[in-house]
Amino acid sequence: MSTVLVTGASGFIGREVLHALRRRGYEIHALSHHPAKKNAAVDGVSWHCADLFERDAIRTLCSTLRPDGLIHLAWESSHGKYWRDPNNAEWLAASLLLLKEFIRSGGRRAVIAGSSAEYQWGGQNDLDEYLSPTIPESLYGTTKNALREVIGKWAPDTGLNWTWCRLFNVFGPGEKVERLIPKVVSTLLKGQHLPFDRGTSIRDFLHVADAGDAIAALFQSSIQGPVNVASGNAYTLHDVVLLIATYLQANDCVQFGALPDLVNQPPRIVARVTRLHEELGWQPQANIKERIQQTCDWWKQAQRAYY
Amino acid sequence: MSTVLVTGASGFIGREVLHALRRRGYEIHALSHHPAKKNAAVDGVSWHCADLFERDAIRTLCSTLRPDGLIHLAWESSHGKYWRDPNNAEWLAASLLLLKEFIRSGGRRAVIAGSSAEYQWGGQNDLDEYLSPTIPESLYGTTKNALREVIGKWAPDTGLNWTWCRLFNVFGPGEKVERLIPKVVSTLLKGQHLPFDRGTSIRDFLHVADAGDAIAALFQSSIQGPVNVASGNAYTLHDVVLLIATYLQANDCVQFGALPDLVNQPPRIVARVTRLHEELGWQPQANIKERIQQTCDWWKQAQRAYY
Repeated sequence: MSTVLVTGASGFIGREVLHALRRRGYEIHALSHHPAKKNAAVDGVSWHCADLFERDAIRTLCSTLRPDGLIHLAWESSHGKYWRDPNNAEWLAASLLLLKEFIRSGGRRAVIAGSSAEYQWGGQNDLDEYLSPTIPESLYGTTKNALREVIGKWAPDTGLNWTWCRLFNVFGPGEKVERLIPKVVSTLLKGQHLPFDRGTSIRDFLHVADAGDAIAALFQSSIQGPVNVASGNAYTLHDVVLLIATYLQANDCVQFGALPDLVNQPPRIVARVTRLHEELGWQPQANIKERIQQTCDWWKQAQRAYY
Repeated sequence: MSTVLVTGASGFIGREVLHALRRRGYEIHALSHHPAKKNAAVDGVSWHCADLFERDAIRTLCSTLRPDGLIHLAWESSHGKYWRDPNNAEWLAASLLLLKEFIRSGGRRAVIAGSSAEYQWGGQNDLDEYLSPTIPESLYGTTKNALREVIGKWAPDTGLNWTWCRLFNVFGPGEKVERLIPKVVSTLLKGQHLPFDRGTSIRDFLHVADAGDAIAALFQSSIQGPVNVASGNAYTLHDVVLLIATYLQANDCVQFGALPDLVNQPPRIVARVTRLHEELGWQPQANIKERIQQTCDWWKQAQRAYY
């Protein structure tokens, strides 16, 4: 059985990746900076507590476990702040050193989380892995893009086989409460009014369970280079908020146009998903309506647990 | 007096940077992985022996010295090998962490060595800091380019004031003997025949003393962003070899066309130097003919010392 080391394993997407890897029968070593007891949720996963910024610890871990594969998801993710957090530079450095230690200890297959933020935003076309320019605006996008460019030149000489997952808007259970969908759901669940802008921005939403499954499927494949991990569907924020409000029977609470549209928001960030659908032969398990409903149900449960 | 930390200080270009900083009156802390006693050549320089891949040592050094400025020259430089050496990735990581520690300890002005290899090679135009595309072919160029792109997004939030020196072909005393000019000079000094290709490749040569002076002048300035450090003059390799052969009275030994032209060599790599000449107001101290002659004289001395 092939062994895989997963970083960011206790995170929003990481947890779903663990489930998807379990279904595929991998021996999983999950890395997290939380102590192991906080991370006992997935059966059959060996948890390791280490700080990716501590090189010696990572070297020891890689040379002890000698994993065949690596799924590297860990990165700065503090809401709002992560776009320009100086830690992005540290994550770039840590990721390079992790890859070096992984390759040195015999690792050969890596799947790494990239971002739609690597692309130049602002156009009207679906973003294509090879045709769309990668001119990131943010420090976050720039460091992700830099990591990908370096791996692209470095991998051929190391024998590393790699896929770069460009994640778009991922939502679902466990998402940070400050983010768009949790904020909308929790506001409406509390029966509060939700002032919103016109909601004309167009985004590409994928449920976190689908994102996790796609990442595990990519890991299992031999696909190389960048792959958009997204739905390929264009939704206005208006559509998405309305799906939530309708399911929660709270349409009266939403006030579109009550807030001014945000300036400098890219009008459209939507992926072309030919690689994911045709090369990998992967499709999400459910449509956005079902996924939004499941997410609302999860938040209802979570709120009951909280209050 | 302002203090400056220089990495790669015992290297080919580093040594000249030290002299140029001394002339400008800086308090210099020179970093090298060689023990201090090997590096006693420049008066009034404090030498520090540390490995830039050892983060704790770099943190301690920065927090102890608290330098105002940083000139970061150290990088992989093993002849021929450096283009694709996996250590380029390690140098990128180490450079990011060095900058972080430098900024954390109060540093505010950094000059960093980039390379003409960041540009897309192959065109016929002079390479311009802002207009020419940066699409590096090599891992070396990709890691340098990645570092520059990250610093460009990172610096504004850290208060870092920075210049990125894109070095072209630097030659002169102390250059590695395997490289073009030392190889030509030493072959001809030994009275041996020198089979060469047609020498049609066009390059931009700058003497190392001029390169060192330009770097120190840029450090002293408040110029921001990428600056080509080059002569701006287009020389064929034929021209350069002939300058050497003529000075050494060895024209009969050179056989142009005796070797086939190398495939995949970019025909022309020449800098536009508007920023260096007009914004900085800097010019090299001597023309290439004088500089080639001085270099030949230095190699004569060095050979006498060797044999």
